[in-house]
Amino acid sequence: MTIMKYSELHTPLRTIMTPGPVEVDPRVLRAMSTPILGQFDPAFTHIMNEVMEMLRQLFQTNNRWAFPVDGTSRSGNEAVLCSIIEPGDCVLVPIFGRFGHLFVEICERYGADVHTMECSWGEVFEPEEVIAEIKKVSPKIVALVHGETSTGCMQPLKEIGQACRELDVLLVVDAVASIGGTDIKVDEWCIDAIIGGTQKCLSVPSGMAPITYNDRIEKILSERKKVERGIATAEDLRQVRKGIPIKSNYFDLSMLQDYWGPRRLNHHTEATSMLYALREGLRLVLEEGLEERFERHVFHEAALVAGLEAMGLTLFGNRKHKLTCVTCIEIPSGIDGESVRSMLLNQFGIEIASSFGPLQGKIWRIGTMGYSCRKENVLFVLGALEAVLLRHGFEVKRGEALQAALDVYMAEVKEPVKEE
Amino acid sequence: MTIMKYSELHTPLRTIMTPGPVEVDPRVLRAMSTPILGQFDPAFTHIMNEVMEMLRQLFQTNNRWAFPVDGTSRSGNEAVLCSIIEPGDCVLVPIFGRFGHLFVEICERYGADVHTMECSWGEVFEPEEVIAEIKKVSPKIVALVHGETSTGCMQPLKEIGQACRELDVLLVVDAVASIGGTDIKVDEWCIDAIIGGTQKCLSVPSGMAPITYNDRIEKILSERKKVERGIATAEDLRQVRKGIPIKSNYFDLSMLQDYWGPRRLNHHTEATSMLYALREGLRLVLEEGLEERFERHVFHEAALVAGLEAMGLTLFGNRKHKLTCVTCIEIPSGIDGESVRSMLLNQFGIEIASSFGPLQGKIWRIGTMGYSCRKENVLFVLGALEAVLLRHGFEVKRGEALQAALDVYMAEVKEPVKEE
Repeated sequence: MTIMKYSELHTPLRTIMTPGPVEVDPRVLRAMSTPILGQFDPAFTHIMNEVMEMLRQLFQTNNRWAFPVDGTSRSGNEAVLCSIIEPGDCVLVPIFGRFGHLFVEICERYGADVHTMECSWGEVFEPEEVIAEIKKVSPKIVALVHGETSTGCMQPLKEIGQACRELDVLLVVDAVASIGGTDIKVDEWCIDAIIGGTQKCLSVPSGMAPITYNDRIEKILSERKKVERGIATAEDLRQVRKGIPIKSNYFDLSMLQDYWGPRRLNHHTEATSMLYALREGLRLVLEEGLEERFERHVFHEAALVAGLEAMGLTLFGNRKHKLTCVTCIEIPSGIDGESVRSMLLNQFGIEIASSFGPLQGKIWRIGTMGYSCRKENVLFVLGALEAVLLRHGFEVKRGEALQAALDVYMAEVKEPVKEE
Repeated sequence: MTIMKYSELHTPLRTIMTPGPVEVDPRVLRAMSTPILGQFDPAFTHIMNEVMEMLRQLFQTNNRWAFPVDGTSRSGNEAVLCSIIEPGDCVLVPIFGRFGHLFVEICERYGADVHTMECSWGEVFEPEEVIAEIKKVSPKIVALVHGETSTGCMQPLKEIGQACRELDVLLVVDAVASIGGTDIKVDEWCIDAIIGGTQKCLSVPSGMAPITYNDRIEKILSERKKVERGIATAEDLRQVRKGIPIKSNYFDLSMLQDYWGPRRLNHHTEATSMLYALREGLRLVLEEGLEERFERHVFHEAALVAGLEAMGLTLFGNRKHKLTCVTCIEIPSGIDGESVRSMLLNQFGIEIASSFGPLQGKIWRIGTMGYSCRKENVLFVLGALEAVLLRHGFEVKRGEALQAALDVYMAEVKEPVKEE
């Protein structure tokens, strides 16, 4: 018996107001402590099927395939892209923040011929600009971020989706930051494949990437499909593959399909406890109702924004295309943004975020996502930020932030009374 | 508010005696219900560092790099291989079961020139055979399974490791099934990179793949290293890369290093709750002590094997190279193996496994791994198997199995008394 230098897990309890990972719903935390089942136990495959059904509702789709990839959010991006990109395929990536660059990075690694277009961080593209570029470069795939967490902006997708469908181009969307927090109509908007995140508006820990894709994607997969040799039947081995093999084994969606589908062909061992967490997170979304949930995110955003502006701070980015669940604030000149963040964490136990690349040191980002998106948290962060800014010598309008946020919250309470 | 068709999670409690996933230690389950921390919270990066330290002890290594990949076990295999294989590299894969085929599959996808050697399932290789083949084909890498769950056999590694080092060949080992259950001396055996599993002898849920690798591997990574464009500094962008870029972004170990190392460069968002689980699983291993833990696995294996043989069943595979934590049993002729497994599950709530490929329908596999490796479970599975086999018309030697296992267990209880 070794003398243990590692104590029992004892973590501080934080108020997490970053754009992810955010506070996990207590019901989700509890679900994870459920004893596990074997991966082919009928009680477990039933849970897998339930999760697929619930994901279809979350994504507002009738797609056959909707399941999580067992990895963090970007594993979903890579699974979708590496399964459909063949070397030399043309992919158009409109970039308006960090995660557009991630798309480029993944596509290049898998041998795509990547065309990019960029707009300044804090803006999004006019749909017509993107459509014109699609017509110009005739890509096989357009890879587009929906909610860009690095800038707090949200790209309108509907017209681009319709144009892609008409032009027979595949539209792949990164909705890691926006899924469960704002409306995304996968079928209606003609999105061919989409990746969601767990640790943001779903309030489930990081570690899974829910995806869904339609039969246009499935057709490509079926041409590249392979069954692993260690478990292939003679019939499987006779199948002749037309397409170029998918580079990754772990991310091969044709194999993941066979694991999630009726054949239940062993690929990986499904991450049991994370699946319990995702199931509970999805139940919470469906219990609340999609519309109600999106409205809740808008409501708390309004209170936060009112408070920040009343304090005398300036928001960053084009307000017309603001992502509901991420609010970016310009760091006032002369103020050390990292010092403010440290003081928020060390004195108040509140975490807010900085940003990346050209925005590093220029903005703070506050998330109002999922379980973290609630009144106490918004009020706490506003009060704390005021105090910390005063301490840093920035003359905020004292006391105004909480009054402005309370105006939003207390107006809401009054309304139902008037209706009676 | 939608009417919920999805009930609160309510799973049956199983006795899981497969070779993974196995029952999760209750302390690990509880750790997962801990509220999460942000990924760059100093309280969290401290936990990341602790996990790295504990992994070094588990792997018996002084390697600088030891961390989990955020995916199920095979994600570790793919991360290691895709980060070191450049197209055309020669890889030797000795195959003695399903997971050798998985190595081939991954290596081929990443463009390696794969040489294989095979022995019949149920056997392992004589080290000299493998060393002779290494000398013949001069590979850059040998990829070898340590504990082959599909056959219950364990490949001796020490001599092969020493030969690889002398011949300047890299040795990559899949220890998914064996880590934490049997002795593996990574440094002493000259293993360059090794992948462990969580859901087997560590009794942590599936969803992470702990790996470690030495400076011979790190040298390759540094030549292929890249910093993601969305977060790269001007200095990063000036760096000229000598090697061919790593295909995968998610599995790029040079990037994972920068996330786990002092630079803390954002890559993915670490799977918080799974990391809590892994930390607690590692604490349990170190508290018990490595030697003590390996002995416990040998002890319960002895009771299980005694019981199975007393019942009149025949073990499968070369006993000299039996994997402690997996016991394979020949399905008696005329008995429907799947019907036996179903009855065990449906009447007793016990799960045992079948196997893959050439062994499908020929053997059952019983795991004695981690938290599942304990007296009550061994006795329960023996009693249940006897009853189910009788019900299937196979005349076992009635009552003998439990007596034989109890002989092992009760002898053990007496010993300390004698010593007094």
